[in-house]
Parts: sequence; C-alpha cells; structure tokens
Amino acid sequence: MIRVAVDAMGGDYAPDEMIRGAVEAVNRNDNIAVLLVGQEQIIRQKLTEYTYPADRIQIVNATEVISNDEVPTLAIRRKKDSSIVVGMNLVKSGEADAIVREELVGGQAIVGRLPGIKRPPLAPLVPTVEGVSLLIDCGANVDARAEHLVQFARMGSIYMRDVMGIEKPRVALVNIGAEEEKGNALVKETMPLLKECEDIYFIGSIEARDIPYGKADVIVCEAFVGNVILKLYEGVGSALIQEIKKAMLSSTRGKMGALLAKPSLKNVVRKFDSSEYGGAPLLGLHRLVVKAHGSSNHKEVCNAILQCETFARQQISEKIKTCIQAEGKE
Amino acid sequence: MIRVAVDAMGGDYAPDEMIRGAVEAVNRNDNIAVLLVGQEQIIRQKLTEYTYPADRIQIVNATEVISNDEVPTLAIRRKKDSSIVVGMNLVKSGEADAIVREELVGGQAIVGRLPGIKRPPLAPLVPTVEGVSLLIDCGANVDARAEHLVQFARMGSIYMRDVMGIEKPRVALVNIGAEEEKGNALVKETMPLLKECEDIYFIGSIEARDIPYGKADVIVCEAFVGNVILKLYEGVGSALIQEIKKAMLSSTRGKMGALLAKPSLKNVVRKFDSSEYGGAPLLGLHRLVVKAHGSSNHKEVCNAILQCETFARQQISEKIKTCIQAEGKE
Repeated sequence: MIRVAVDAMGGDYAPDEMIRGAVEAVNRNDNIAVLLVGQEQIIRQKLTEYTYPADRIQIVNATEVISNDEVPTLAIRRKKDSSIVVGMNLVKSGEADAIVREELVGGQAIVGRLPGIKRPPLAPLVPTVEGVSLLIDCGANVDARAEHLVQFARMGSIYMRDVMGIEKPRVALVNIGAEEEKGNALVKETMPLLKECEDIYFIGSIEARDIPYGKADVIVCEAFVGNVILKLYEGVGSALIQEIKKAMLSSTRGKMGALLAKPSLKNVVRKFDSSEYGGAPLLGLHRLVVKAHGSSNHKEVCNAILQCETFARQQISEKIKTCIQAEGKE
Repeated sequence: MIRVAVDAMGGDYAPDEMIRGAVEAVNRNDNIAVLLVGQEQIIRQKLTEYTYPADRIQIVNATEVISNDEVPTLAIRRKKDSSIVVGMNLVKSGEADAIVREELVGGQAIVGRLPGIKRPPLAPLVPTVEGVSLLIDCGANVDARAEHLVQFARMGSIYMRDVMGIEKPRVALVNIGAEEEKGNALVKETMPLLKECEDIYFIGSIEARDIPYGKADVIVCEAFVGNVILKLYEGVGSALIQEIKKAMLSSTRGKMGALLAKPSLKNVVRKFDSSEYGGAPLLGLHRLVVKAHGSSNHKEVCNAILQCETFARQQISEKIKTCIQAEGKE
C-alpha cells in the first residue's frame, strides 16, 4: 500500500476539489491510501458526499490556516500546525510516501534533499502531439549552473523511464538553434557535459518550436526558461482555443460546424490541458513531493496521487540516489 | 518615394516569393519603389509574369550566390557581389531606405549602428488576441546586460507608437511572476532601471502566459528567452491547429463540422500566422534592416516591404537616435 498525503486546504478550489480528487484516486487504484491533511471537521463533513473504501482515506487534523497574503517561507516556520507543515512532516517521518500540495515551499527544508543533489528541480509534464514530455526545471530557483542541468537530465531520464514507461527517453537541451556555435553561455557550458553522460540518451539541442511535436522526452533547461515555456504553452493554447470558439460562434454556419465538431475539438482541448497529467514532481528529495497547480481541479489532484503511487512503487528516489552517487564516484 | 531593397535570392522560396511579394507591395502602395537585388536574368524573366508599375521596380544585378553550407559571416566578406552584400551596400549608401532579406548577418557590420546603440535588437511582431505585440530581443546576441534591455524598451516603444500607431505602448519585462522578489539576476537588475525611464510607459512584469492575450505592447526580454518565446509560439500554435484538423477529420461528424467551420477557423489560423505581420526589424541601425523568415512567402515579403515604408516615412531611425542621445545626456 502506498500512502499519499494530500494538503486538503491549499489551492483555489480547496478543500472540495482536493477531497474529490482523493476519493477518485482511491477508487481507481487499490494500492493507494490517502491521508487528507487539514481541518478535520470540514474534511469529515465533505467526505460524507462520497462513496469510497473507508479504510483507505484517513484524516490528519491540522488546525492552523495559512492565508494568501502571508509569505509562505515565513508562514511555514510560524504555523507548525498548518496543513502544509503537518503534511510535509508525515512525509519526512515516513508515515506518508509522498505528498500532493499546492505550495512549492518547504519541500527541501522539511523533506530534505537526497545526498549529492545540488538543486531539486520542479518537473511538470507538458502535452505534445505524441504524448507528454518532462520539462525540467520549472522551479523557483533560477540562474542554474551547468552541473545542475546535468543532474536534471539524469533525474528526468529516470522519471520518464520508470514512471512514464518510456524505454529509452530522449534527452535534449533547450537551445535557440541546432548549430554547435548557437546558445548562451550556460548552454555552451552544459552541452559537452551532457554529451559525456553515459547513463542518458542525449540527442543534443531542441528548439522551442519542436517541443509541442514531442521531439524529446526530457526537455532540460534553466528554471527561468522553463517557467517561460510552461506558461507560454498554457497561454498560446488557451488563447488559440478561445479565439477558435469565438470565431465559430460568430456566424450561423460556424455555430453549426462547432456543434458537429465539438466532440473532436474536446479531445484536442483535453489533450493540451495540463490538468490531465497530474501535478509537477519536485525531484531529488528523500520522498516525492508533487506540486499541484493553484487552480487544480479534482482530475489533476487524482492524477497527481496516481503519479505518486507509481513513483513510490518504482522506488524512483532510490534510483536517483544511486545514479547521483555513481556520478560522484566517476 | 521610399526605396526598399529586397534580397531576391535569399530564402527557401527565393526568388519566386520575394519577387511576387515585391510586385504586391508596389501595387498596394504608391509611395514604394523596390530594388530587387540578385541575378538579373532570372529576376527579369520572373517579372514578366506580373503586372506592375514598371518605374517602381528596378533590378540591381548581383552575380554571386551564397550557398546554404557557407558560414554567412565569412561569405559576406568573400562574396562582395552577392545579393546580400550588394543590397546592404545600397542601404549603406542611401540609395535604398531599407532592406528586406532572409539573412541576419551583416546588418551591423555594413549598415552600422546609430550612435549610442549598444546592441541592435531583432524585434518581430507576434500575434495576440488583441492584435500584435513587439517581442524585443529575438536576435542572435544572447546574454544581454540590463543596460541593453533598457535600450530595447525605449526603441520598442518608439516602434510601436510610430510604426504600429499605438498611442501609449505598454512596455513590460518578461518575468516568472508578478511579485517583486521573483526573477533572475538580469530581471532584478533591469526592473528598477525600467521603472526610472520617463519616456516609456512601463507596466512591470509580464508572465509568458499573458503574452498571447496582448497584456503588453512591447515585450522586453533577453534574446535567448525571446527566441524561445517566438519559436514556442509558432510550435504550440501549429501543433494545436494540426491536432484540431486531425481530430475533426477522424469522424464523419467531425468532417461535416470542419467543412462548416472552415471559414471561421481560417480566420483564426491567419490571425496566429506570423507571416501576416511582415518580417522582424533589426532596430538601432542607421537605416532599417528587416529580416524575413527563411520560409517567407509573398505575403510576408509584401508586409515586410510595407513596414519599411512606414518606418522610413516616420523617420524611426532619427527618433531612436534622438531618444538614445537624450539618455546619454541625463
């Protein structure tokens, strides 16, 4: 049984969507138990709306609430009985194998980095025409160094292989052209280091235009660039879909077309909707910490929990540890 | 009369699309004369296919051809009678007011920077739901400094005001969050400098997800990030449209819907198709140099030529020079 803690109180639609996502996850996978962390009374009340195996959802009471205008890094130090701190401590102590929560802070500080990990990257899955690719790093720590990017490439490769089941993940470095002389100082320093890595399948540069076409499975970049890619992905996708809807609804002919095309369009929108792919794992920690979007709905929460199960079952943290230790000995 | 040189021999569809674009431009705007630079015989032959005012298209012979496997920076030094070098020299000498060509090289070296310009940025217009925004810088010189970004903001602001007709262009700096403490070292250094600029309307950070929604008119960023944004824009847009087409054509119902929705969809695709907006100007030079896509078609070439006309008529280079000189005296 894999035990996943869920911070029920964090996120724009908390606790409703967090609770619903947890219920869906235990109903979909018999190997999962969820620890819902937050204000017990509220959670207990909400849970009465659902049917689920009672022995696989447990409530862990956390009385304090962190408001949106508090500085997260300070709040987690002051409010030891908040859902986020209580949840992270469950992971630290091993009572939970993983945690899903909306906040990014506290992962490193409470759960702790694996030995040898220089910087834990946040690595969301982005949709492509071929499936999904791992975009690593999209975290809050920008201005990475080449040695960080090399670790990202290795961790990302393990994740795509053992969590997502891609036999030989293609690893590429985000660049602004395929030619050797292209790139900024960081890319030029990182490129030869990645070429030397024997434990990954490095295919060289990837231009941003090829990311949506799934030309690589692990997209390595510095966090500022990763954040720009992730957010532009969302922005262009949603703006384009909004414009298509508007254009179709502006004429009778278009409206009829829209009605007929709706099921097909829905599939595409779903495919390019990141909520289908669960949250973003923060890799390189002792146990798995998954960041859900602030605007996560039950689908995303459920997928994030399912991802935690695979991660724990596949012992990804152990594999990352072994890989990074091997690096140290080279 | 504004005289625009066009490198007829550069680009994937040269010389056909370059010539067709030139013909369209002179037919659309009486104030434009085009100097088609390239192999005279070939161009003269192609021109017989079109109707146009003969006094406003002139051929300037250039016998040498630069092939795709030559290093551009070396080729322009060796092949003085290539269309690119001959064309640039027309601009340098003032025989042409502007040039449209597919190559990026040689702009600075031949046409020369305006006094005070530290680095000439390449600034394409990107489509948004509201119209277009200027993405500055997307050039080949990466790892910019804060002082470069400040000049980009000022030049971009002049361009959007006087070429695109936006009265008070909103200038924003690409960042990974709106909060003060967010950003990489470059952003943190640039932010206060932009706040102090009195000649621009600076609105602060812009997250990549807001770019397609037209939340700013001038999007300031370092060239590596700018290139990633530009190419991901193209990639996500075209991948999404490809998927929508595929999804619609996979069922009879979808096919009927597609048929009916086609005119509306076409409008959106056109809106998000960068060829509608002409090439990317290289700002900060004595005269205007516009880079067309390698895959430019006649529409893009024509729009690039029309853009040159406005640029020259509005005396943008003069305005940039005055603005940058004022900066030096502060």
